[in-house]
Amino acid sequence: MLITKRVEFSASHVCRNPLLSDRENQELFGMAANPHGHGHNYVVDITLEGDPDPVTGMVLDLKKLKDVVNREVITSYDHRFLNYEVPPFDRLVPTPENIAIDIWRRLEPQLSKDGGRLHAVRVYETPDLFVDYFGDAA
Amino acid sequence: MLITKRVEFSASHVCRNPLLSDRENQELFGMAANPHGHGHNYVVDITLEGDPDPVTGMVLDLKKLKDVVNREVITSYDHRFLNYEVPPFDRLVPTPENIAIDIWRRLEPQLSKDGGRLHAVRVYETPDLFVDYFGDAA
Amino acid sequence: MLITKRVEFSASHVCRNPLLSDRENQELFGMAANPHGHGHNYVVDITLEGDPDPVTGMVLDLKKLKDVVNREVITSYDHRFLNYEVPPFDRLVPTPENIAIDIWRRLEPQLSKDGGRLHAVRVYETPDLFVDYFGDAA
Amino acid sequence: MLITKRVEFSASHVCRNPLLSDRENQELFGMAANPHGHGHNYVVDITLEGDPDPVTGMVLDLKKLKDVVNREVITSYDHRFLNYEVPPFDRLVPTPENIAIDIWRRLEPQLSKDGGRLHAVRVYETPDLFVDYFGDAA
Amino acid sequence: MLITKRVEFSASHVCRNPLLSDRENQELFGMAANPHGHGHNYVVDITLEGDPDPVTGMVLDLKKLKDVVNREVITSYDHRFLNYEVPPFDRLVPTPENIAIDIWRRLEPQLSKDGGRLHAVRVYETPDLFVDYFGDAA
Amino acid sequence: MLITKRVEFSASHVCRNPLLSDRENQELFGMAANPHGHGHNYVVDITLEGDPDPVTGMVLDLKKLKDVVNREVITSYDHRFLNYEVPPFDRLVPTPENIAIDIWRRLEPQLSKDGGRLHAVRVYETPDLFVDYFGDAA
Repeated sequence: MLITKRVEFSASHVCRNPLLSDRENQELFGMAANPHGHGHNYVVDITLEGDPDPVTGMVLDLKKLKDVVNREVITSYDHRFLNYEVPPFDRLVPTPENIAIDIWRRLEPQLSKDGGRLHAVRVYETPDLFVDYFGDAA
Repeated sequence: MLITKRVEFSASHVCRNPLLSDRENQELFGMAANPHGHGHNYVVDITLEGDPDPVTGMVLDLKKLKDVVNREVITSYDHRFLNYEVPPFDRLVPTPENIAIDIWRRLEPQLSKDGGRLHAVRVYETPDLFVDYFGDAA
Repeated sequence: MLITKRVEFSASHVCRNPLLSDRENQELFGMAANPHGHGHNYVVDITLEGDPDPVTGMVLDLKKLKDVVNREVITSYDHRFLNYEVPPFDRLVPTPENIAIDIWRRLEPQLSKDGGRLHAVRVYETPDLFVDYFGDAA
Repeated sequence: MLITKRVEFSASHVCRNPLLSDRENQELFGMAANPHGHGHNYVVDITLEGDPDPVTGMVLDLKKLKDVVNREVITSYDHRFLNYEVPPFDRLVPTPENIAIDIWRRLEPQLSKDGGRLHAVRVYETPDLFVDYFGDAA
Repeated sequence: MLITKRVEFSASHVCRNPLLSDRENQELFGMAANPHGHGHNYVVDITLEGDPDPVTGMVLDLKKLKDVVNREVITSYDHRFLNYEVPPFDRLVPTPENIAIDIWRRLEPQLSKDGGRLHAVRVYETPDLFVDYFGDAA
Repeated sequence: MLITKRVEFSASHVCRNPLLSDRENQELFGMAANPHGHGHNYVVDITLEGDPDPVTGMVLDLKKLKDVVNREVITSYDHRFLNYEVPPFDRLVPTPENIAIDIWRRLEPQLSKDGGRLHAVRVYETPDLFVDYFGDAA
């Protein structure tokens, strides 16, 4: 059984790789390479796997999940310029692909400490573009 | 191939286990344990698996599916207080997890009689919280 | 200029007038008269009127608005059975019309104390049914 | 890792099989068999599978994907009457099932030429009815 | 006070004026002039004005409204090719503007018979394009 | 009669007034004053007023509207850091209020040249916060 909690944050980013020239970045990323950056209202779906507890009927304690997500993700990402303020995006291009992987790495150790099994992280950059990450093993 | 039909119902529930004390319910479920109950516009995605029929181009007859879903789920759930009016929620906490399992149990035997293969039941309690159930074998 | 903040709460209600017979309530409200009640995820749009401040560029301080709405509306309504726990719905049928009027009455005096001009309250009972209230003068 | 791009087109169709009688079509498809046709705003989610490139952080070049989807799907489908103007729907009933299969067949060879791996095509006929196709092997 | 009920129908149309040449229609309407037609999932918001009844708390009886809308609009429009099957669109181009005016003309006399005051008709051709009509006097 | 076209752009901004101290900006705008900025997917509804042309059935030529909006607004705003790249936001705080006023000022002269009457500009900063501007006279 899967349970999914949706959260949101607003951030800005620029899609450019510091190892490439301006022209290469422009060709790869188009307008998204504009060095001043631009922004999005990101939507993140965090999905856990498990069986509902026979007493509580819940796969996991939603208040604990909310605390972990706020502490590990929202506090770091919300209202930030990802390239300048949120490692590892000083080194990695903050595409939705890399954002999903980073959110997985932040959440998975914290959730597994409490017995939670993270199944997927979905990141919507816009309503029309989103990625799903299932961890290294997937 | 999968085909999914979305339906909706409005119901109220209270998240409390009658075997636990008031304090324990309050700690587990917070405001959702308020014994007067509260409510939601539930959204349910019912997904079937199959191959499209070469003549009709359809995996299944949508009118039959609609009849089964109305008879087995909507008539029982819509405009009800789940804990008091819809078994098994006299015994089980009506979390979205348990609601998804109950909808599966109501639909699966009826659909398989007509050759349908139920693949998943998704229940949205709110737009930001949903569960997926794939049957016992999943 | 108008600025609108959207908030949400989950509650249950029953549509019945205690002065009417069961049959009359059933005829007026149909399934919504079921005395056990049912529930909704209500969505509320609160609209204020004003000119943006030349220094801040804002019609009003959104943090103050959020505090007022939480204190006067969300704390009272969220996760409640409106008929039994939220006056005046012990006397008035909690239709979306009466809910919008009550939210206006709770918010308007608090907002006007800070110089805010409430313009409209919109209440969605479901995504397909909503009301707009503009105060007595409208 | 999966990445999904959502696109839209408007088209009309009629659900009838030319090999069946009017009465048989009416019984199978109801109002959707009306020979004048009717229409939808179709929404299509195109999902690819892959690993993000270490330099660009992207699973695939979104501009190339957009070009392929526009050339192979949108140009053919948008503002068309599918049964009369878009083969194979002169022979196949344009149900969402058959539309998803046809979109897969149009996109898959083009995407695989550039090293892309098509994972799924989801077609929404309405917000409440959608299908997922994963290719022949799924 | 305003109350709004949202309904939907699927139809096809072609944007062309029979008094104009093919070239003129093509220039005016672009792809939408394709004579085979194309289609949309239309969404219609019907707004009435009134005061809530002190006994029922309702501006109007929603079951009656639903009956009138189904009888006067949905039965005529749903699953139809508007130009060929729904007068006055044999003579008028079925733009969302003309559809909104026609829905007003169908509903207003029926609603005013029961004391209802129609305030506005909104027609969404797509989520990104919609019109509002307030009657001749507006 | 009103007709509304919805468009979108992604941009980043910082809510701070250069005439105020860091502490004052922090108190006024909270996290939104973070000098690195953050971003949003802005949604803009552009509403015009008019009567449908008897020949075309349209209030205005949508292709012309689209051209004007792209040229005057989207090209300037999309994928930009508003404070640094889009005047007048070098001087004015780019709140949704000021963005709506600026979009009005860019569009109104261009639309009125072609006989269009701009009625309103709505700007959604997030799905839960939006403003409406009706021009100076409103």
